[in-house]
Amino acid sequence: MPATPRYDRILLTGAAGRLGSRLRQGLAPLARTIRLADREPLGDLAANEEAAIFDLADMDATIAATKGCDAIVHFGGAAMETGWQTILDSSIRGSYHVYEGARKHGVRRVVYASSVHAIGFHALEAHIGVDAPVRPDGLYGVSKTFVESLSRLYWDKFGIETACLRIFSSFPEPADRRMLWSYLSFDDCVRLVTAALTAPRVGHSIAFGMSDNPVKPVDTSGAGHLGFVPQDSTEPFRAGIEARTPVPDPKAPAVRYLGGWFCELGHPDDEPTR
Amino acid sequence: MPATPRYDRILLTGAAGRLGSRLRQGLAPLARTIRLADREPLGDLAANEEAAIFDLADMDATIAATKGCDAIVHFGGAAMETGWQTILDSSIRGSYHVYEGARKHGVRRVVYASSVHAIGFHALEAHIGVDAPVRPDGLYGVSKTFVESLSRLYWDKFGIETACLRIFSSFPEPADRRMLWSYLSFDDCVRLVTAALTAPRVGHSIAFGMSDNPVKPVDTSGAGHLGFVPQDSTEPFRAGIEARTPVPDPKAPAVRYLGGWFCELGHPDDEPTR
Amino acid sequence: MPATPRYDRILLTGAAGRLGSRLRQGLAPLARTIRLADREPLGDLAANEEAAIFDLADMDATIAATKGCDAIVHFGGAAMETGWQTILDSSIRGSYHVYEGARKHGVRRVVYASSVHAIGFHALEAHIGVDAPVRPDGLYGVSKTFVESLSRLYWDKFGIETACLRIFSSFPEPADRRMLWSYLSFDDCVRLVTAALTAPRVGHSIAFGMSDNPVKPVDTSGAGHLGFVPQDSTEPFRAGIEARTPVPDPKAPAVRYLGGWFCELGHPDDEPTR
Amino acid sequence: MPATPRYDRILLTGAAGRLGSRLRQGLAPLARTIRLADREPLGDLAANEEAAIFDLADMDATIAATKGCDAIVHFGGAAMETGWQTILDSSIRGSYHVYEGARKHGVRRVVYASSVHAIGFHALEAHIGVDAPVRPDGLYGVSKTFVESLSRLYWDKFGIETACLRIFSSFPEPADRRMLWSYLSFDDCVRLVTAALTAPRVGHSIAFGMSDNPVKPVDTSGAGHLGFVPQDSTEPFRAGIEARTPVPDPKAPAVRYLGGWFCELGHPDDEPTR
Amino acid sequence: MPATPRYDRILLTGAAGRLGSRLRQGLAPLARTIRLADREPLGDLAANEEAAIFDLADMDATIAATKGCDAIVHFGGAAMETGWQTILDSSIRGSYHVYEGARKHGVRRVVYASSVHAIGFHALEAHIGVDAPVRPDGLYGVSKTFVESLSRLYWDKFGIETACLRIFSSFPEPADRRMLWSYLSFDDCVRLVTAALTAPRVGHSIAFGMSDNPVKPVDTSGAGHLGFVPQDSTEPFRAGIEARTPVPDPKAPAVRYLGGWFCELGHPDDEPTR
Amino acid sequence: MPATPRYDRILLTGAAGRLGSRLRQGLAPLARTIRLADREPLGDLAANEEAAIFDLADMDATIAATKGCDAIVHFGGAAMETGWQTILDSSIRGSYHVYEGARKHGVRRVVYASSVHAIGFHALEAHIGVDAPVRPDGLYGVSKTFVESLSRLYWDKFGIETACLRIFSSFPEPADRRMLWSYLSFDDCVRLVTAALTAPRVGHSIAFGMSDNPVKPVDTSGAGHLGFVPQDSTEPFRAGIEARTPVPDPKAPAVRYLGGWFCELGHPDDEPTR
Repeated sequence: MPATPRYDRILLTGAAGRLGSRLRQGLAPLARTIRLADREPLGDLAANEEAAIFDLADMDATIAATKGCDAIVHFGGAAMETGWQTILDSSIRGSYHVYEGARKHGVRRVVYASSVHAIGFHALEAHIGVDAPVRPDGLYGVSKTFVESLSRLYWDKFGIETACLRIFSSFPEPADRRMLWSYLSFDDCVRLVTAALTAPRVGHSIAFGMSDNPVKPVDTSGAGHLGFVPQDSTEPFRAGIEARTPVPDPKAPAVRYLGGWFCELGHPDDEPTR
Repeated sequence: MPATPRYDRILLTGAAGRLGSRLRQGLAPLARTIRLADREPLGDLAANEEAAIFDLADMDATIAATKGCDAIVHFGGAAMETGWQTILDSSIRGSYHVYEGARKHGVRRVVYASSVHAIGFHALEAHIGVDAPVRPDGLYGVSKTFVESLSRLYWDKFGIETACLRIFSSFPEPADRRMLWSYLSFDDCVRLVTAALTAPRVGHSIAFGMSDNPVKPVDTSGAGHLGFVPQDSTEPFRAGIEARTPVPDPKAPAVRYLGGWFCELGHPDDEPTR
Repeated sequence: MPATPRYDRILLTGAAGRLGSRLRQGLAPLARTIRLADREPLGDLAANEEAAIFDLADMDATIAATKGCDAIVHFGGAAMETGWQTILDSSIRGSYHVYEGARKHGVRRVVYASSVHAIGFHALEAHIGVDAPVRPDGLYGVSKTFVESLSRLYWDKFGIETACLRIFSSFPEPADRRMLWSYLSFDDCVRLVTAALTAPRVGHSIAFGMSDNPVKPVDTSGAGHLGFVPQDSTEPFRAGIEARTPVPDPKAPAVRYLGGWFCELGHPDDEPTR
Repeated sequence: MPATPRYDRILLTGAAGRLGSRLRQGLAPLARTIRLADREPLGDLAANEEAAIFDLADMDATIAATKGCDAIVHFGGAAMETGWQTILDSSIRGSYHVYEGARKHGVRRVVYASSVHAIGFHALEAHIGVDAPVRPDGLYGVSKTFVESLSRLYWDKFGIETACLRIFSSFPEPADRRMLWSYLSFDDCVRLVTAALTAPRVGHSIAFGMSDNPVKPVDTSGAGHLGFVPQDSTEPFRAGIEARTPVPDPKAPAVRYLGGWFCELGHPDDEPTR
Repeated sequence: MPATPRYDRILLTGAAGRLGSRLRQGLAPLARTIRLADREPLGDLAANEEAAIFDLADMDATIAATKGCDAIVHFGGAAMETGWQTILDSSIRGSYHVYEGARKHGVRRVVYASSVHAIGFHALEAHIGVDAPVRPDGLYGVSKTFVESLSRLYWDKFGIETACLRIFSSFPEPADRRMLWSYLSFDDCVRLVTAALTAPRVGHSIAFGMSDNPVKPVDTSGAGHLGFVPQDSTEPFRAGIEARTPVPDPKAPAVRYLGGWFCELGHPDDEPTR
Repeated sequence: MPATPRYDRILLTGAAGRLGSRLRQGLAPLARTIRLADREPLGDLAANEEAAIFDLADMDATIAATKGCDAIVHFGGAAMETGWQTILDSSIRGSYHVYEGARKHGVRRVVYASSVHAIGFHALEAHIGVDAPVRPDGLYGVSKTFVESLSRLYWDKFGIETACLRIFSSFPEPADRRMLWSYLSFDDCVRLVTAALTAPRVGHSIAFGMSDNPVKPVDTSGAGHLGFVPQDSTEPFRAGIEARTPVPDPKAPAVRYLGGWFCELGHPDDEPTR
């Protein structure tokens, strides 16, 4: 590991979330300081941490939080399918605020938590690569494609690099048959973000985030320049999951499409939602 | 022409705009009634016309305006690069309201005025097709990619067809050297929208809107199922334009990229803007 | 036209059929003699014609009929979806007999009437080219893919050229809305077969057979070396057809897929069939 | 391994053959019962086995054998290049009977032993993927392409999944220099069939069957959703084979093409055959 | 036509050659002065012409000739397959001298007469586009690929635009059956060079030069940004050529490959050459 | 290892160079004799070695040196960016002499040290494959593309196989941050040349030469038929290099493009050069 961290200060949005709390620790070696941003409490701070409590919908607060940072790991915003107003405020407006902060304060690189749900309606057997057209599977996915597009603009026009990481399923362990292929272990998630932060050249890149599971329904080679090499696999979990879950119907949208059961959800503003 | 129009009632948003006012006439043969929507006055109404004056940012009004329509020609929203708040309200929120209207009132097909500015940072010599990744050249372009993505969702999940027409430069006549290749005549614009409204199968389609000009920097074949056959060309305008405008620098962004001078604009919220 | 016909004797199978009877006349300039093969009566013979009445399922007769020919235009076999035994005997076994005849008697070029139904389950908006994987829409289509594959072998291994012409809808005139894009006029059909017979190099080629209709759901450029330039269009028929036929549901398989209503047929050996 | 096998009863055709006899054992964990089908004797049956002795050319017997099965592993039919009548009866008609059985008795998934000989005339350096057009290298290969096409129809129209496994060279050990790249070990063959039987989504898939040998002349990524991960390699056999076999001529068809010496065979019905 | 020519002075190398002497006239409207370069006499000069007689192998003379020019139309060098020393001096070294002249004297755009023989060993049915790997069919073709590569460097590193025009067969009229597809009329040749000189953006482009002949064995769309629209066709010549020339063997290299009979030539330094 | 070496005599050009001196040892098992060619002294010869001291610019000497060889490993010529005259004599003319030697003396296979600098102006995130158009980053790179093209001709027309190995950075160990992805260890270099010499079928192949480093900016699958499997990685060197070298600017040409700092060099004949 280098004696001098790669970054001086990284802003981590969504720091109190499922992945954010893992990255808070995992990214420690990469920066002198990690500024943790969330609207939820962040618990005790380590010596290398500083807290910034605000809502991403607050433009001024968000822009202010980017000051003094040389990288942003943007994992904040809505964490799953939810109503339009939340998507609009947290994910669309909030992400715009983050990029305006980066632009105004000269942050050079952003790592963004995009999602499989940006391309959730592609079929597994289509074996899409990172350049495939978007096919979101919900409002959550639409917001991910919005930020992918916005960040493309901020690279082409304003020179801010972004790695959009389309995370598939990152949980403590795989929970169902779909996760046998979609799972990204927490450790591999940290490896992926680390690769995106340390790669010599990111420009505007889109990557898929999965562990080295046997079933590989997408082509990850287009992000090879990021240098992400997953180390984990779902193979140890297979027998257990297959023993306790029924065989899926291969024609069900939840099996057919990359987005899984998100593809079967109705509109989140219809009541009752799932 | 069929004795019975293809549609009962078409909602035309942006009906008072540059293109909207042409479509108002041009689409007359396709519906018994055209409901003209704009927040600006619409002038005298013809027998087949009805007016709906509201702001697309008004969700209830927008949804109400879609009632009773069996097609929407969505040309409303911001008409060029402008500040974030306008883009957000008119183009992002406004378009979401249009699609929610379509979903709630069972409208089956939408024709959307997307723009070259959704893919403005692709180079001419890249010869992209309709499936190329988006590369917006401004907030305006980002909003176009948002609607392209949103409409993809509304097709995949809710079964509403959309033809996204990436209109290049539709003006009374070509005004500069770039328009010698990017120009879409008003008549060809009407032909393009007509094709999208009458094609047997649209699903979710993306098309490029240019006349049959000699310089062809993009591949339009991917939208061949829409049946658009341009009839006009800029060739008659070439000598005049070349005589009165200087030779462009081939390395200037405005020449290099599909988006033209939009690629050279700064951020619209910086002052002073162009 | 050349003083000396391109061929000495062309064998035309299916000569009594809908297309065969047109080709019988249309190909006259290309050969001194056209040997007309069918199991049905052929009517009066012209000076340049000779008849060969047999069933393609008869291997010896079929092989004998190829003797003395320097080209075969193979339009015989089942003409639409039908039961397995007929497909097997007429189209699979019969075509094998034709190719064995070509091999044993040194015929150098075959023009084969393949069909859109070899790739009928591809969607219109997929815009497939001639190299797309086969997706037959019935047993008829499977037999077409069988001959496309068999003829590929006879080229690679035995040096017999074949142009597989995937004819879409060749009738006296377009009969429904689908034919507005799928129609191949009789004259264009003759042009297509003529091109395939006179092209300098065929090797093993696959081509699509449609007239120059506005709606173009497939990419025909891969067969550009055959030199087929359609001259007809369905545009004159559009208004009439649209006036007398209902608007199709864009989600119906018959509209969604290239194969049209063949995609909606059940198995031909189930009773009752359509 | 799951406590409950994935399938209740698997029909294994060609169960007495070279690969069938290995699969008979290797697939035991996947079903309560394996029904072994062949026209040759099958030896002693294990507790989980039941025998069905019949000829695939017998439609009624073949259909009857599929009754009560929820998966079919179809390795029966001609095992190498042979005369037309055998190919027709065993491989073409026989496979049609298998699929009719699946359709009539509701079998949901078929794993089919296709072959490199379906694409044997592609050159090594072409690096084809699973979507490349077929180029069979003999009648055997043509019959493989027939079943690949037929099974595509049975998926698109009748909803029966098939994984077509293009097995390259599966023998006890690699026997010549070509097998240094084309070899599929018996254990990897079992792994491949197991993957195809247990993958969450097969739809209609085509996969290549080779072990993890250093020389990789085809692109296997298109079948990544099946989850096949080969474990064996020919590297331990290399020195021995190179010591006892001459250096091949790189221009010989047997070296140039994927199909190897099949590409150099004449027509199997010419006498004498190789 | 613009009152002011597009260029001040165009250097035309190979001005005494078959195509050069046509371009000398055809390009007159595009520049105040055309500097005609050749080592052969140029005949009487028109008012807009000036002569520069030198050998391209002479570095100093070549560089001097580029002074004061704002475009170069480089049609000089060997005109067909010939011995290595001539290729080396005239085409390789000579072209390097031309580009060094452009670099030293600030010439911004070069139009280069490349040739089908740069990609002559591609088969017609491969339907290559402008990005296909080179496959030269002789030393002449190798020299064309050298200049295509050299000019790519001079664009990427030194900012000099080049349009490489792969001219197929440009003669007074088509002379054999191959030219029925490969022919580029003199008028279309002038149109092609004119397009390359006037296109708004050339960067480094490769184009194919053929008239609008029915047989189209290559995909020209990748050069659509140059705006070349051929107006001529070989169709009027077809009957005459077919009447007086024999039917070609479709397997002969001269028919199979784009390069025609160049593919059948031996090495030009072996004696006797064709 | 086979008892009998694969070759009788290999000619190794550039045998005194950085890589040549490693190959001299590493290729020993592959031939009875290795003929070492260089214009520099070669030191003591081993029992299996013979020396040939000459300049590649000497046609007769070069051709003579190929006599009696059955393979050529051509690593001679300029080793980095240098002036035109050296590139012309050593790399262009010299390589032509090597191929003429191969042609005249019946050498069947050549392994050529091409370079990343043949495609140096492609961006990392373009993820090019081996078929991408050339984009040389200097005269050195242009000479590499010349030999790649020349060797294509000698395969297509004269049947001499060549594997063009685009070596990235082969040094004793990685020396800077770029080499963390571009590095090819000496052992992997020997493996790569060995694979190219022993592959059953080379035809004309282009391969990329890098070790198994985490960052993979190009797609190597197109050379899978050569059987090169790198065994080394730069991972052990990462921490040290990152500790002692500054973070690169991702927009600098040296970071953006595959060719690294070659892309930032001026013309080598301008003084002073770097």
